[in-house]
Amino acid sequence: MQRIYLDNAATTALDPRALEAMMPYLTQHFGNPSSIYSYGRETKMAIEAARKSVAKILGAQPAEIFFTSGGTESTNTAITAAVRDLGCNHIITSPIEHHATLHSAEHTSHCNNIPLSYVELDEKGHVKLEHLEHLLSSHNGRSLVTLMHANNEIGNLLKVKAVGEICQKYDAVFHCDMVPTVGHFKINLSELPVHFISSAGHKFHGPKGVGVLYVRQDVQIKPYIQGGAQERNMRAGTENLYGIVGYAKALEVAMESYEADCAYVTDLRNYMTAQLQQEIPDVSFNGDWNGSCLYTILNVSLPKTERSEMLLYSLDMNGICVSGGSACSSGANHGSHVIAQVNKDTNRVAIRFSFCKHNTREEIDYVISKLKDLI
Amino acid sequence: MQRIYLDNAATTALDPRALEAMMPYLTQHFGNPSSIYSYGRETKMAIEAARKSVAKILGAQPAEIFFTSGGTESTNTAITAAVRDLGCNHIITSPIEHHATLHSAEHTSHCNNIPLSYVELDEKGHVKLEHLEHLLSSHNGRSLVTLMHANNEIGNLLKVKAVGEICQKYDAVFHCDMVPTVGHFKINLSELPVHFISSAGHKFHGPKGVGVLYVRQDVQIKPYIQGGAQERNMRAGTENLYGIVGYAKALEVAMESYEADCAYVTDLRNYMTAQLQQEIPDVSFNGDWNGSCLYTILNVSLPKTERSEMLLYSLDMNGICVSGGSACSSGANHGSHVIAQVNKDTNRVAIRFSFCKHNTREEIDYVISKLKDLI
Repeated sequence: MQRIYLDNAATTALDPRALEAMMPYLTQHFGNPSSIYSYGRETKMAIEAARKSVAKILGAQPAEIFFTSGGTESTNTAITAAVRDLGCNHIITSPIEHHATLHSAEHTSHCNNIPLSYVELDEKGHVKLEHLEHLLSSHNGRSLVTLMHANNEIGNLLKVKAVGEICQKYDAVFHCDMVPTVGHFKINLSELPVHFISSAGHKFHGPKGVGVLYVRQDVQIKPYIQGGAQERNMRAGTENLYGIVGYAKALEVAMESYEADCAYVTDLRNYMTAQLQQEIPDVSFNGDWNGSCLYTILNVSLPKTERSEMLLYSLDMNGICVSGGSACSSGANHGSHVIAQVNKDTNRVAIRFSFCKHNTREEIDYVISKLKDLI
Repeated sequence: MQRIYLDNAATTALDPRALEAMMPYLTQHFGNPSSIYSYGRETKMAIEAARKSVAKILGAQPAEIFFTSGGTESTNTAITAAVRDLGCNHIITSPIEHHATLHSAEHTSHCNNIPLSYVELDEKGHVKLEHLEHLLSSHNGRSLVTLMHANNEIGNLLKVKAVGEICQKYDAVFHCDMVPTVGHFKINLSELPVHFISSAGHKFHGPKGVGVLYVRQDVQIKPYIQGGAQERNMRAGTENLYGIVGYAKALEVAMESYEADCAYVTDLRNYMTAQLQQEIPDVSFNGDWNGSCLYTILNVSLPKTERSEMLLYSLDMNGICVSGGSACSSGANHGSHVIAQVNKDTNRVAIRFSFCKHNTREEIDYVISKLKDLI
């Protein structure tokens, strides 16, 4: 059976060039990067070359890039440090963030006995900037604002610069979860007023188990994972050498052909949208799907019926991989907290299609034909 | 130039069979293990098979094994959770633990304003059990005892069972850092009175960037890294799929031939010890080198001279990889905190040789001949 993978927001296939870059470190170059002899220095140099490459692509300084075990660890580090080390005594987030942010914010708020506020969303699911400003202005003390660059379920894009400027006005710390956008957008951190960003390799055809935490150069924090002196005393533990090398190579590959890939995937998404509208009765889309939205995500809303409720399973039986929401929360086995916020109609079901440059129109045609049969 | 790697306590070469087991997950099987469709279930099954295999080898239940990003994260998790979730209000460790333990213990003690005690060592560098008991009996409340199974610099072995029984007597929580011993010893956790153990794949020819935290089944803790529902809500973040598969395979390979490898490496270590004693004037050894000691480590003590102080560099120039102490702290560029505790003679320099099954007598002969030239 043909397998059609349309869940690229959950994870992506490792790029063969990233794997090729990793292979020497999985075989002959295995020295501990912290060792002082030449064999360790070889691998240390590979890590520093990776850091330099990532920094350059993201418009950052190498000293601002820290390698972690993934986006979740990066986000936990930023939220913890903002409260512990930067004097924040109030956390502002939105109800549609990834669980890495929501659960870390809830935990940090609870443990430190500080308030946690949720910024309101407009009817399209965008953060209301005036409400963010209201939350900031009515708090005595420093706030942490943690909002994602693009929602991982509906794709809505945040006005990062505008949010950052509001944060600056109120001396707030701004953490931006860029896990869904790094490798998919041109990001120039030197022009964005952010303190922290999170990213994960496996979202742009890099390896799983590795991420980046960007910490603006003038921000002084302590490590979240304590121990050895790795990552300039900022992230203890022997480095995931191959992961780091693979992350950097995958980001390089992604950004090399970014413009063409973006145009291709946008076209594919538009094609699918049009086909769905033409072929599937009563279809609609969640989020700001035809406005400010990530080009890789299309969140489809269908009338709830016995058949549509079984749709994910039926599609799976036909070799089509899509999801109802974020993969990270699927173990929890209840509906998406994001869709519950942006689509109050409980008589609808949501399916997220997420694309990459390897998907084709033929795949979309096949999915549409199956959807017609299954609904 | 021939390269001789005698720093296997810092990190080891990835076993080709572990890499072979990882390859399908680095290429075709890339689905997110949290996804509900068959493509995600394939990778989920690989993780659960790995968990089952690791549990069986360590004498644990699969539900007691949690995959982390490495030994350092495992140790941070255990220490944090013992205080936050298990009611410990006193931490006991030793002055010669790994920095992952020492810095995490210092941080947790500081943040929670609870005392941190260091158990005394005997003249060979072993933990004094009577002093441990004294520390436990003189504290009001519950203590966390965190001690490593084998010291990573001098190799001294802890009496894990005896320590665990003392901890039981005082209702203390016992975390044992087994990073240096998992994959090198037969460990049966079902017979050991421990609450937590830490382990890291890259210390026994597994991959870097992956570790295990064992949590005894009756111990209820919250995650250290918050977010998605991975690892049964105990460790958030998309799993390092290849790392986990590689960890399990490397452990399986290591324990398959453990007895033969142990005999071989022990013989090699004995051979080197005898050669050093015969060929190098005024040589001695740190720790309980000819007693209760890890068979993979030999910590050599030499008189301090201009030449011996340069020895690590001189050996490196000759292609010989060894270290002065733990790789993780080498960035700090000051002497080993372990050697400072166990050898008060400041007129000596220490060099750690650490072996694996791939080392040979010919390599030892070469090292001895070079040492004779260099000292």
